Amino acid sequence: MIQLSLIGIGTGNPEHLTLQAIRALNAADLVLIPRKGADKADLAGLRRTICAEVLTNPATRLAEFDLPVRAETGDYRGRVDDWHDAIAACWETSIRDGLGTQGRVALLIWGDPSLYDSSLRIAARVARSLPLEVSVVPGITSMQALAAAHAIALNEIGAPFLVTTGRQIRDHGWPPGVDTLVVMLDGACAFQTLDPSGVTIWWGAYVGMAEEVVLSGPLAEAGPRILALRDSERERHGWIMDIYVLKRGL
Amino acid sequence: MIQLSLIGIGTGNPEHLTLQAIRALNAADLVLIPRKGADKADLAGLRRTICAEVLTNPATRLAEFDLPVRAETGDYRGRVDDWHDAIAACWETSIRDGLGTQGRVALLIWGDPSLYDSSLRIAARVARSLPLEVSVVPGITSMQALAAAHAIALNEIGAPFLVTTGRQIRDHGWPPGVDTLVVMLDGACAFQTLDPSGVTIWWGAYVGMAEEVVLSGPLAEAGPRILALRDSERERHGWIMDIYVLKRGL
Repeated sequence: MIQLSLIGIGTGNPEHLTLQAIRALNAADLVLIPRKGADKADLAGLRRTICAEVLTNPATRLAEFDLPVRAETGDYRGRVDDWHDAIAACWETSIRDGLGTQGRVALLIWGDPSLYDSSLRIAARVARSLPLEVSVVPGITSMQALAAAHAIALNEIGAPFLVTTGRQIRDHGWPPGVDTLVVMLDGACAFQTLDPSGVTIWWGAYVGMAEEVVLSGPLAEAGPRILALRDSERERHGWIMDIYVLKRGL
Repeated sequence: MIQLSLIGIGTGNPEHLTLQAIRALNAADLVLIPRKGADKADLAGLRRTICAEVLTNPATRLAEFDLPVRAETGDYRGRVDDWHDAIAACWETSIRDGLGTQGRVALLIWGDPSLYDSSLRIAARVARSLPLEVSVVPGITSMQALAAAHAIALNEIGAPFLVTTGRQIRDHGWPPGVDTLVVMLDGACAFQTLDPSGVTIWWGAYVGMAEEVVLSGPLAEAGPRILALRDSERERHGWIMDIYVLKRGL
């Protein structure tokens, strides 16, 4: 039996690591580090740094593997499925090469494995051909890092909020029955497609990291400033990852 | 100027503490610990344990204060406002007694200050009469601890989810446009008021703590078992705090 630990590491601040994450990492025989070639957004460097800083177990080995590339054509769901299959095959190969069919393997998961992350689904695929026991260590999410950076609460008192994606906003507009949205996975600033009147935005990129930038204000006024800042930051760093909260009716 | 640090400590597992939380705690001159009298749910003991385990700065002092009680009659919003005013007055008194008008004060916040927590709103009240600079350290939430305990993702691929309260479900039923709900602050098992057909529940109490219990399954079958387990756990411990995820159309 392979024991697989999916360890949430937070959003790039090595101090987001919990004591539980550090313990789980040190309990692993093997830590898998995905690489995306020259892509700076693979954060392999961050994962190596974290291991170098908190790994004290001399028996823990690191194994890097090249992350497959997601197809750019075809229907979204089909592409995602194929991509997860390909990643699962890489995990399985790395685990078999490094451990055989017994031992503890860990993966450092950006943010938290429960939130817009595919590692649990990939693990379920690996479990079809390799006996696997999966455990999860929660980590700080970008949603929390954003709220912390702005010192805001996500919810209004007793009110709900929706966690959603840029694609959902672009395709369906402001969702019904809710006045607070947390928008993730938005590569195209879907807030531009909304009527900005009465809406406030709290935006951040690289939240939790040394590169963190944040901006907030009425959407009508802050929206264009965010577009400009986002472009210049992406140019400067070669990649960008951002998130925002929208509230209306405050 | 008072520097107030609201430090998310996770949900009762001392290992939920992040390195950032430990650093922020040790940077404080004064740590405020709220007490709720004989109420075991005040978790003052947990906060004292955390301080004892991770505080290494001999200059950091602890100050306990009695948390005011929320009125049980009157409209909900008015009662909450009055209660927050009363807590703000306690914070201010403790800060003035312990530090005067200058220094670093920290509060250990259950979960994360951004999620169904009133500390940011209370801090805003204190800031009306005491110059205050507020910073937030994110912590593991019960939502994440629940997902980790069940090893599930909160969202389906590319889909939104709603974070809401028991009261919202009870008053308005299943909200429109979303198939995944995270239900918090539910003292009365609002899932009972929903049509259970096609709905799956992942429930947990004391998530992250040594007392953690979890249960999942189709709502029609798991719902009654959760009601029974919840009653017996509450009886056994003298208090209960629980949370659940509902999904339909899987």
